[in-house]
Formats: sequence, structure tokens, C-alpha cells
Amino acid sequence: MHIDDLDTPFLLVHLDALEENLDRAQAYCDEHHVGLRPHIKTHKCLAISRMQMDRGAMGIVCQKLGEAEVMVDGGVDRDVLIPYNIVGRIKLERLAALAPRTRLTVAADSEYTARGLSEAMTAAGTRVGVIVEVDQGRTGVRTPAAIADMAALIDSLPGLELRGIMIMPSPPSCRPLLQAVLSGLDARGLPHPIVSGGASPCMWTAHEVPELTEHRAGEYPVGGMKHLQVGTHTVEQCAGRVLTTVVSRPGADRAILDAGSKSLSLAVHHDERGGLLGHIVEYPEARLSGASEEHGHLDVSRCDPKPRIGERVEIIPVHPCPTFNEHDEIAAVRGDRVEAVWPVEARGCIR
Amino acid sequence: MHIDDLDTPFLLVHLDALEENLDRAQAYCDEHHVGLRPHIKTHKCLAISRMQMDRGAMGIVCQKLGEAEVMVDGGVDRDVLIPYNIVGRIKLERLAALAPRTRLTVAADSEYTARGLSEAMTAAGTRVGVIVEVDQGRTGVRTPAAIADMAALIDSLPGLELRGIMIMPSPPSCRPLLQAVLSGLDARGLPHPIVSGGASPCMWTAHEVPELTEHRAGEYPVGGMKHLQVGTHTVEQCAGRVLTTVVSRPGADRAILDAGSKSLSLAVHHDERGGLLGHIVEYPEARLSGASEEHGHLDVSRCDPKPRIGERVEIIPVHPCPTFNEHDEIAAVRGDRVEAVWPVEARGCIR
Repeated sequence: MHIDDLDTPFLLVHLDALEENLDRAQAYCDEHHVGLRPHIKTHKCLAISRMQMDRGAMGIVCQKLGEAEVMVDGGVDRDVLIPYNIVGRIKLERLAALAPRTRLTVAADSEYTARGLSEAMTAAGTRVGVIVEVDQGRTGVRTPAAIADMAALIDSLPGLELRGIMIMPSPPSCRPLLQAVLSGLDARGLPHPIVSGGASPCMWTAHEVPELTEHRAGEYPVGGMKHLQVGTHTVEQCAGRVLTTVVSRPGADRAILDAGSKSLSLAVHHDERGGLLGHIVEYPEARLSGASEEHGHLDVSRCDPKPRIGERVEIIPVHPCPTFNEHDEIAAVRGDRVEAVWPVEARGCIR
Repeated sequence: MHIDDLDTPFLLVHLDALEENLDRAQAYCDEHHVGLRPHIKTHKCLAISRMQMDRGAMGIVCQKLGEAEVMVDGGVDRDVLIPYNIVGRIKLERLAALAPRTRLTVAADSEYTARGLSEAMTAAGTRVGVIVEVDQGRTGVRTPAAIADMAALIDSLPGLELRGIMIMPSPPSCRPLLQAVLSGLDARGLPHPIVSGGASPCMWTAHEVPELTEHRAGEYPVGGMKHLQVGTHTVEQCAGRVLTTVVSRPGADRAILDAGSKSLSLAVHHDERGGLLGHIVEYPEARLSGASEEHGHLDVSRCDPKPRIGERVEIIPVHPCPTFNEHDEIAAVRGDRVEAVWPVEARGCIR
């Protein structure tokens, strides 16, 4: 199929750029002997997960249990981390059913979560690995002493296997904290086979944090506006884009696209040009200054020539994860050819 | 099923409140002889659309062609407006296929769109109604003279039936503009059987704009934080909510919910308390001050008592339309009972 035969808006992944991004990250992690654990919450797509595993990823990370179920059902079952507090009877029963099907690890940051996991695993006659998150402002446990206490509790509970810790993000500046946490565990003889760092931009400094056994990264396969800004990706390397059509030119300096917040998400990137909802590849001077649900609002005052009604352009979104979550399918393109249309199997797995 | 048997996060619609909202709006429109045209982009759900039609709605409005196809396929086919510029071969062919199946009207704001519609309808041997949008800052045509020119073009083209105009929003202050537009059409003998106003909050002043033949409103069935602020809905009348579980209490003043931007959307409401992503029904003093994709960040410093891990609470979202678009299903509840689980059939219909 030719790319012109796709209706718009349509989520694209440019295969040449995707493959280069995957190869580049895996080569870096291999060179520095750190495991690459791709976060599938970015693309939510079995086809891309399989490409990551085929290149040597040590396992995957899923933000919700439902994503992990989709991945394991699809054969991406080597090693699965769910860095989330699994709470409540229904989820715990699902977790116990998933545990025997892969090497499964979850996170726990409270006695409530740890005891719930233990009771559910024991009741089901199975086991699950557990790590403790170092609190950096979202979930987790804050001090090295409290982390060691939580790890000791997990280590003592039936049905649980203490597997270490995680931190997010993991820039080189996190080393002193990480060392204090690991010393606290070592002092009490608590094992930590997993020391997991995270965030795509921090991946390229993982070799400066030798305590890490693995790195969790989600966005590196496709990039986004943040990646353009921090320099980890060029425009050409931003493989994930939304193909859209100009449907209106209601004023000399205005253009309206058929991709709004329901195709892009409402994520906003702030730079010297103000708040933007995406980068227009063909018109880098255009400002995607706002969006309603089905309309992208483009300021084309600095464009010469200006986009015409009916013209199709590609948008690099701000944050690929919520953007991919708005789409049921991805067109995998190489040049002008659509090589495949992939379902986004784990889209909407919020439970 | 009991509501406690729902896993979280889960999108709820409270039926008592929903039915009251539907009745109240229909009664108002009936009393004032203005057609009520519900915008199904809010709920995207056939079951709710049918409840609206059963109460006397004159038709529906869909923001994208794909939504209209789902509704007509589901039997909601009395009268369908798509207030959008339908551009491009693939969509025009789909539009021509849909046109004979309902009384269908679209919008056009350019010669490009109007001629494309005409050619596609003529090629398919069918017709479609067309209205002109009065530009209020998104799409449309700005001046009464230019609107009359656009209407005259539509009126002259084969396969098109000029049906009038639309404006959004339509507060009483829009009357002078509306009158100027209609005078311009009348002076040239151009018909305008549809004069369509829009926005849920403006519905309650539609009787002060007697030029309107109909009102488009999407959010009135379920409400949202904006509706709480403008006073069209009480907390009890906000029927659309996200049921969520407290999964972490990482600090004395912090609680983390299992509903983040992928359950709520990234829509933010700004009030004197700062930017908020939702209103917590059980803890009105709590501030839902941020969200990552699967975590809602709650400031509970003003709550006494404070929410506990494992507790379930209901969130009234900021903007119901993008919230409903994140969900594949809706639990229709009355008190503690789940009366039905409805699919969100038109979710993700971005094309």
C-alpha cells in the first residue's frame, strides 16, 4: 500500500528510523553490560516488542497488569516487570494467574501492598518477585533505612521473592543515594539481583552508574519533541508521527489540521515559542499552538509557502506514550510504502 | 453485579443523575421549541445516544465521520450532523456511502471543501446537506458577506443542499452577528432551515436567541469540573466519574491513585487551588494536582481523615469528552448496583 492510501489522522512508525533507534540502544547497553528492559507502555504494540526482544532486550516493563497480560499472551514472556503497587482482590487474582507464565516481578512500597501480594500468591500456590522503589516524588520509599525495612518485610513474607530495587529517573547524580540504599540492604544481608534504572534520556549515561543491572526505557524507539530538545533524537530519528490533513485555512495565518487532542493527546511542550502540541515536519516554522479534540490549530504566519487545504503533513508528538494510546493501529512505513498495519494491542490497558 | 466487583480504574455513569440530566435538558428545549441535537462525541456510546433519542432529541451531532458511521450502524439514524470539513478521497467516498442511510448534513468553510463534496456526491449519485460555520476562532467563515458567498456557492453546486448555518458557542451576545448573517442570506434568497447553536452551558440561554432552530450540546448528560464551576451541575448531577483505588501513600500529605492521564486525559482545570485534573467526590479537600499516565497525584494535606491504601474513590473529570475517549467500556450504576456495562462504541473514531 502507498502511504497516500492511508486515511488521516493515522499514526505512523517509520521503520528505517525505528530500526536504527532499536539497534543504537541495544548496542549501547550491550557495550556497557547493562540489561535493556524496554518499557512497552510507549508503543503498546506486540510487533515492536518482538523487535526489541529479537535484538537482545533482557525482558520488558509494563506499567499496568493488563499490559503485561497482553504481552505474555502474545509470546513476549521472557521476563516481565510491573513497577506498580498491585492492590485489590481482582488484580491480585489476575497477578497470581500470570505469575507462573513468565519470570514476573512487581514493586511494593507499603506493608499493605506487600502483605496483599503475599496472601494472594500463597492462596494461589505461586510466587512473584518484588522490588522496592526508591521514592523520587511519585511512589516508593524515601530513605535508605525505610527501604531496607521494606525489603526485609518482603524477604520475610511467603510467596514473595525479594529481587532488589528500582529508581526513576537514574542520572549519574543518583549514585550517592543508590549506594546508600544498596549498603543498607547489604548490611542486612538482603539480596538485590535487580538494580533497575529508568528514563530514555538517562539510558545514555547508564555506564556512569555501574550499580545498575538494567535500564528501563520506553520512548527511545520513536522519540518525541522532548527528545528533539535534549538531543537524543534528530527529526529524522523521531520515528513515531501522526499523519494529518489540512482541512481548513480560516485566515491568512491560520491552518486547521484533522488531528487534535484525540490523535495527539493533550501533552504540551513548552519552549521559547510558547506551548506546542507537536512539531510539523514539513513546516518547522509552523506553531501547533493548540488543539481541540479533532482540530489541530496551526499558526502558519512564519511559513513561506504556507500549507494548503488538502495537503498532508506529519506531526512529531510531544510525548509518544499518550499519543500511541489514542490509536488502535500503527502504519509501519518505509519511504512511501506501508509495509504493515500493526494493532496497538495494549492500548487502553488501564487496569 | 455490585460496584465493588468492578476493577479500577473504571468509568462510571450514575444512572439516576444521567436520566435527570437528560430529562431536564429535553424539557427545557421542548418548552422553548428549540431542537436538542446531542453531541455524541462526549459519551461515544450507543446506549446513551438511544436514551437521548427516546426522550425526543431531533438528531445527533458527531465530530468525525467515523463516529457517525458507528451511530448509524447502531440505529441512531434519525438526523446526523457532522460539523466538519470532510476532505480527501477516502473520507468523501465513505461520506457518499453514508449519505443515503440518514438525513445527513456536513459543514464546509472553503471552496475546496464544497467542490470536493459536490464532486463526490455527484459521482456516487447521491446528495448531502451542507451548512456554513460562522467562524468564532476555529474553523468557519468570518464575515456575513463571505458567509453569504460561501452559501451561494454551496447552493449552486450539484449534489449539495444548502441547509443554513452553525455557530459555536451561541450565548445571547451572538445575536447581532447571527442576525447580520441571516439578513445576508435572506437578501440573496438563500435558505437556512438549520440555524444551529452550540455548547452545553449556552443551552440554558437558547431561548434568548430565537434565531436558533436547534442546539448542539454534548456534556450535559454527565457534567464535569467546568460544569461544577459554572453551576449547571451539582456534584450529584455529575454522572460521569472514574472509579479509582488509592495504591500508595508515599508521604503524610501524598496519596497516589491508580487513575492517571490514561484514565482521565491530561485536561487541566484551573481555579483558586491551582491546576487540577479532577474532583474527588469523597475528599473534596483533596487536590488532584497532577498525573502521570497511570498515577494520579493527590495532595491530601487538607483532608481529615485522609484516604487509606486500598480505599476506592470517585473522580469527576475536568472535561468528560477526552476522558470517555480513554475507556472501552462504561459501568452504568444505580446506587451500589451495576445495571449494565456498555461498550464505548465510538471511542477512538478519529477518522
